[in-house]
Amino acid sequence: MNPTPSPLLQQTYDLRQAIRSKAHTGPTSGLVQGAMQGNVVILPADWASEFLLYCQKNPVSCPLIGVSEVGDFNMPELGHDIDMRHDIPEYYVYRNGEKVESRADIEDLWQDDMVAFVLGCSFSFEHALSQAGLTPRNIEEDVNVSMFETNIATVPAGRFFGNTVVTMRPYVPKDAIRAIQITTRFPKAHGAPLHFGSPQDIGITDLGKPEYGDAVSIKDGEVPVFWACGVTPQVAIRNAKPPICITHAPGKMLVTDILDMDLAVL
Amino acid sequence: MNPTPSPLLQQTYDLRQAIRSKAHTGPTSGLVQGAMQGNVVILPADWASEFLLYCQKNPVSCPLIGVSEVGDFNMPELGHDIDMRHDIPEYYVYRNGEKVESRADIEDLWQDDMVAFVLGCSFSFEHALSQAGLTPRNIEEDVNVSMFETNIATVPAGRFFGNTVVTMRPYVPKDAIRAIQITTRFPKAHGAPLHFGSPQDIGITDLGKPEYGDAVSIKDGEVPVFWACGVTPQVAIRNAKPPICITHAPGKMLVTDILDMDLAVL
Repeated sequence: MNPTPSPLLQQTYDLRQAIRSKAHTGPTSGLVQGAMQGNVVILPADWASEFLLYCQKNPVSCPLIGVSEVGDFNMPELGHDIDMRHDIPEYYVYRNGEKVESRADIEDLWQDDMVAFVLGCSFSFEHALSQAGLTPRNIEEDVNVSMFETNIATVPAGRFFGNTVVTMRPYVPKDAIRAIQITTRFPKAHGAPLHFGSPQDIGITDLGKPEYGDAVSIKDGEVPVFWACGVTPQVAIRNAKPPICITHAPGKMLVTDILDMDLAVL
Repeated sequence: MNPTPSPLLQQTYDLRQAIRSKAHTGPTSGLVQGAMQGNVVILPADWASEFLLYCQKNPVSCPLIGVSEVGDFNMPELGHDIDMRHDIPEYYVYRNGEKVESRADIEDLWQDDMVAFVLGCSFSFEHALSQAGLTPRNIEEDVNVSMFETNIATVPAGRFFGNTVVTMRPYVPKDAIRAIQITTRFPKAHGAPLHFGSPQDIGITDLGKPEYGDAVSIKDGEVPVFWACGVTPQVAIRNAKPPICITHAPGKMLVTDILDMDLAVL
């Protein structure tokens, strides 16, 4: 560690160590509030430039906050002693677009030609929402955020294409308006919502059955509000079918040393 | 006029002159886009301080942009040669809280102790919405904006109290999100909406029957979005029952020389 880490940096370091030692294997939502969390995509170098372009063309669902050097499993710009092979609670391994396994580390899968991408995550604005008295339901209910595949197409790039994945948080309209204002400040964490109200409008048939994460309760008078989600690339990876690709498991993110506020606008 | 008025100031001056001469008697929505329009309340001085406090306590529905000197019917801080007795297309006259007449000028009603208040108006952000491709339906359909009384109580001050009046503009959710972002920049024009979706939630029973202004069409997939409205004081005036009070007629505003952008934040 640095000689005198801040309390927050000590917490992010300690959490990554707990994840590395497999003491923490669960979702990271609500942990070390104020520290930016990231979605992870790891690809061989010969797929990396197309994926980089895919992120550039889809900045709302794929807001890049870090790209590793080829073969380097550290991400020094995102935090002290990050090891991309160990510091995510759960990894998904895709081969030829099929998810073949989930695992707690990828040490024996790491290749010298691999590039790690880290994308901002809506968890970054959950802290700001909570501070405004708009604690997301998934935090209140201590579950993973609800994630759904939509019919909103992303912009294709090379072999990568597919529909947008969204997170959902329910609010009464008055609070949804405030949540739109707050999340607008966080473009690197997907920014403002894409949609609210009718799930059918964006191709979601049942809010009780999220494709990823957990269902949350929706109370009388609340409307579902939908933000773009960093799981979107996993749909594009299933379509692109790279020989190998490794991602985080939805809701189980890389915890960085970057402050959410460092990447907030205004 | 100033020696070399800008084209916009020439337009606002010309429109006020057309109103003064009674050539223009209709709504002002969409006219001289870029120039701030204002709601008007004129009260005797012994009621003015309570009304000033009412505005201070309810800045979203009553965003003050100008207050005249006692007995002065000019408003030099809001525009060249404004005459509050003539420059509004239609006035409402309230006596003891009852609306007793509407008229095209109030020259013979003006008293030496009168104070004129001008409040920002949502028309100010309609220009910004239109520039963003979100032209309000009332402008598209060339009618007055729909206004409704709600069950949202204002904060009382002295003898002034009552519920909030709102304007309604329909948008699909994606556009409503953008409209929330855009209108947030205009706190002196009521800022972000108070509500969207279910009209019943805020005490509105029939969107086809606005209390003021005109009904507009709502298309499939659109939700009604509700902003606070400067007609709110007219409800408080009916409750407070001052011996005399003069207001603008809803939708027929004072056109000022202030730029909407001058009072925008960010």
